[in-house]
Amino acid sequence: MLRRSSIWMPMLKEAPSQAKLRSHQLLVRGGYFSQMASGIFSILPLGNRVLEKLEKVVDSEMQVVLGAQKTRLPILLSADSWRKTGRWDQTGDELFRLKDRRDNDFCLGPTHEETVTDLVASFGHLSHKQLPIKLYQITQKYRDEIRPRFGLMRGREFTMKDMYSFHADEEDIMRFYDNVCTSYENILKKLGLDFVKVRADTGNIGGNFSHEYHILADTGEDDLVCCDSGDYAANVELFEPEAKTSTDVFNLDCNCTESTCSCMGKGKLRIKKGIEVGHCFILGTKYSDTLKAIGVNADQKRFPLIMGCYGLGLSRLIAASVESYRYHASTTKVTADDAIVWPRAIAPYEMIIMTAPGKESERQKRKDIVEKDIVPYLSETVDINEVVLDDRWKESLGVKMAEAKLIGYIWVVLVGKKGIEVHHLPSSNIFSVQHASEIPSIISQFDDRIQK
Amino acid sequence: MLRRSSIWMPMLKEAPSQAKLRSHQLLVRGGYFSQMASGIFSILPLGNRVLEKLEKVVDSEMQVVLGAQKTRLPILLSADSWRKTGRWDQTGDELFRLKDRRDNDFCLGPTHEETVTDLVASFGHLSHKQLPIKLYQITQKYRDEIRPRFGLMRGREFTMKDMYSFHADEEDIMRFYDNVCTSYENILKKLGLDFVKVRADTGNIGGNFSHEYHILADTGEDDLVCCDSGDYAANVELFEPEAKTSTDVFNLDCNCTESTCSCMGKGKLRIKKGIEVGHCFILGTKYSDTLKAIGVNADQKRFPLIMGCYGLGLSRLIAASVESYRYHASTTKVTADDAIVWPRAIAPYEMIIMTAPGKESERQKRKDIVEKDIVPYLSETVDINEVVLDDRWKESLGVKMAEAKLIGYIWVVLVGKKGIEVHHLPSSNIFSVQHASEIPSIISQFDDRIQK
Repeated sequence: MLRRSSIWMPMLKEAPSQAKLRSHQLLVRGGYFSQMASGIFSILPLGNRVLEKLEKVVDSEMQVVLGAQKTRLPILLSADSWRKTGRWDQTGDELFRLKDRRDNDFCLGPTHEETVTDLVASFGHLSHKQLPIKLYQITQKYRDEIRPRFGLMRGREFTMKDMYSFHADEEDIMRFYDNVCTSYENILKKLGLDFVKVRADTGNIGGNFSHEYHILADTGEDDLVCCDSGDYAANVELFEPEAKTSTDVFNLDCNCTESTCSCMGKGKLRIKKGIEVGHCFILGTKYSDTLKAIGVNADQKRFPLIMGCYGLGLSRLIAASVESYRYHASTTKVTADDAIVWPRAIAPYEMIIMTAPGKESERQKRKDIVEKDIVPYLSETVDINEVVLDDRWKESLGVKMAEAKLIGYIWVVLVGKKGIEVHHLPSSNIFSVQHASEIPSIISQFDDRIQK
Repeated sequence: MLRRSSIWMPMLKEAPSQAKLRSHQLLVRGGYFSQMASGIFSILPLGNRVLEKLEKVVDSEMQVVLGAQKTRLPILLSADSWRKTGRWDQTGDELFRLKDRRDNDFCLGPTHEETVTDLVASFGHLSHKQLPIKLYQITQKYRDEIRPRFGLMRGREFTMKDMYSFHADEEDIMRFYDNVCTSYENILKKLGLDFVKVRADTGNIGGNFSHEYHILADTGEDDLVCCDSGDYAANVELFEPEAKTSTDVFNLDCNCTESTCSCMGKGKLRIKKGIEVGHCFILGTKYSDTLKAIGVNADQKRFPLIMGCYGLGLSRLIAASVESYRYHASTTKVTADDAIVWPRAIAPYEMIIMTAPGKESERQKRKDIVEKDIVPYLSETVDINEVVLDDRWKESLGVKMAEAKLIGYIWVVLVGKKGIEVHHLPSSNIFSVQHASEIPSIISQFDDRIQK
């Protein structure tokens, strides 16, 4: 069990003036991230715990559910393959470019279609028996944004999960594509976030089929066209330029066929705001043709591998969680400006134990209850890696409680005037208990409610 | 339990011609790493498993034993602080430099003294109560080597653990420095590697006290001066240039005082070859003075924080393990050129289950023994994430066994002519068993021997 006095938890009273979004303000004030240069951040210890928990959730879906294999492709990418696919010239100033000491061109990878295709191709022609191949990584990505802003939402260095798959035929990739979509939905549900899957433009990546995952949030930068009574949803980018000039124009009938929307033509199209966190593409053979990633079928015939790619922005997902996660029973009190409410799956710590200071005799008594009763009991019944002991016995309760809310612990165990209280911060529920042994049963009431 | 047929395990018959070291050859042939550009590698799924296991060993020592907090500092570093400390100009072509779209200078971080000092300083003056602060990260580092070579030993993009500590006084940093050294020794012992701690030059990092950790290996690039009957050891760089011209010159008496070597002046100095994997420095106030990382003591007096930094090269440690780890009871057979012998703590998988093919009736019988007897039994008694099932039932035993040795599983469970055999590859021991239930007791005999 970590002692609060033994760890460095820097916090700020005020958010930097350029921080406009709630998520940016709270994550900086709470000491999760610290800006080092425009759009470039240090991930502080609390932020690293959140990121590692999110990585575990993602790893589990990718490996156990999808059977994908984890790799780490380089960050520093040679220009050679980017020239072959044409993206070296097509990509503008958003690509960080550099030269090595021998004047060779490199870039910092924003995405790795060329690299992973080169890698697979380097092992020669692949038997159809080796397919599909499903590789993913969770690494830093780079994009020299014109206007980096909103903290982790739009950084120049950010953490992404990107997966690439290689298949022998269309049927196989479509099945896998659907499985990836299900996994993305599992991850977003595990985080308790409101999301929508929309049809999307394929942009610079290329390919012929694409969906995005958006977290719904008023502060989102993307306009999504959603049917109000069915499941049709698309990024506004898919519509004609003239239609984009006014959002009113979307107060239209959902002229869908049965296959494209469940409203059966009865719905209206509305605009919603979203934060893009995931993007899936069927790439086809664009990269495998050019970079010679070749399969051999049962009849010894050669074919270019059919590829898909699947991104999930982890830094952005953390910011989006702070921006838009609401515990379903939460009151206005705990969604105030000075509190982060984390989805339980990625809360940096689940519990803090603290005391109200009081007079010296009271202070000692409360300390004894914590150290001789609560700590030993919890050490045997909960995961102590998730518990912080606030051992600043003389610090005011107001300071400690404000810190607990800003950081976003799920549980506060408080020993004060009223004896032992268990606070469930996301719901503002407070439970009085006579003894530490009652704590686990209180926690268990809430687990299922948080882990939707 | 992973099925061999469901995963991509690319392997090469021949190592690339430029691969001179055993570790480079085996890691490339076994499909652990793949070179994408000079000194730049993709880490393949097997390599990623090794790296993640090593990271866990390191995380545990850093967090649980040393009480350090894990962070992630940026890879893309602004030139500003590097200019303030003078290293922007002092560092030569080995620094990868680039400009962003607004013409600002950046580099790819080879080390993070400036960054971490800036970070700590950004939170204002630190009360002595907040000290010491101990931050570490495990991230990619960059050095544009003139001659990248030896695979992971000397890459241009590589994985390092780097830790930085901030203290109020000399006594506190010396105590922590010693604890870090003990942790490094714990890690190297856990890997079963022969290592030596040597006094070292402080080089470009600066500071006033420094030790390196070297894995002893004939192929090491560093010359170490070691007393043959005491514990004195130093990097040859610490000696005068003229003394370095011949190794014979070191056949000298160990002119030590009692405090510098346990030989009491009776030993001779000899040269040994080492692979540098760790480096600890007391930096003093070089960075905190310049970048204004200031503490405040109990009397409200300000002082520059006293800093230390502590590196551990993880990619290099993996290569060094392959290069020089020898299971203590190993025969020449298993240290042959076509086999990796991993320290158990970082073996990518601990066990593979396979069958000899034989005639169809035999094949079916052996498959039944595996699927109905061995797999169900092991699923309940061992960590199945560590076990691969080779379900290529028709593949020849020779091919499968050669692959198992190249990859370096610790255990092979083989069902063939002689019934069930359990092969312990590091020692070449083979055990015949009547039933799967006997396997766990065989494994348990070897655990302690491998995990020194």
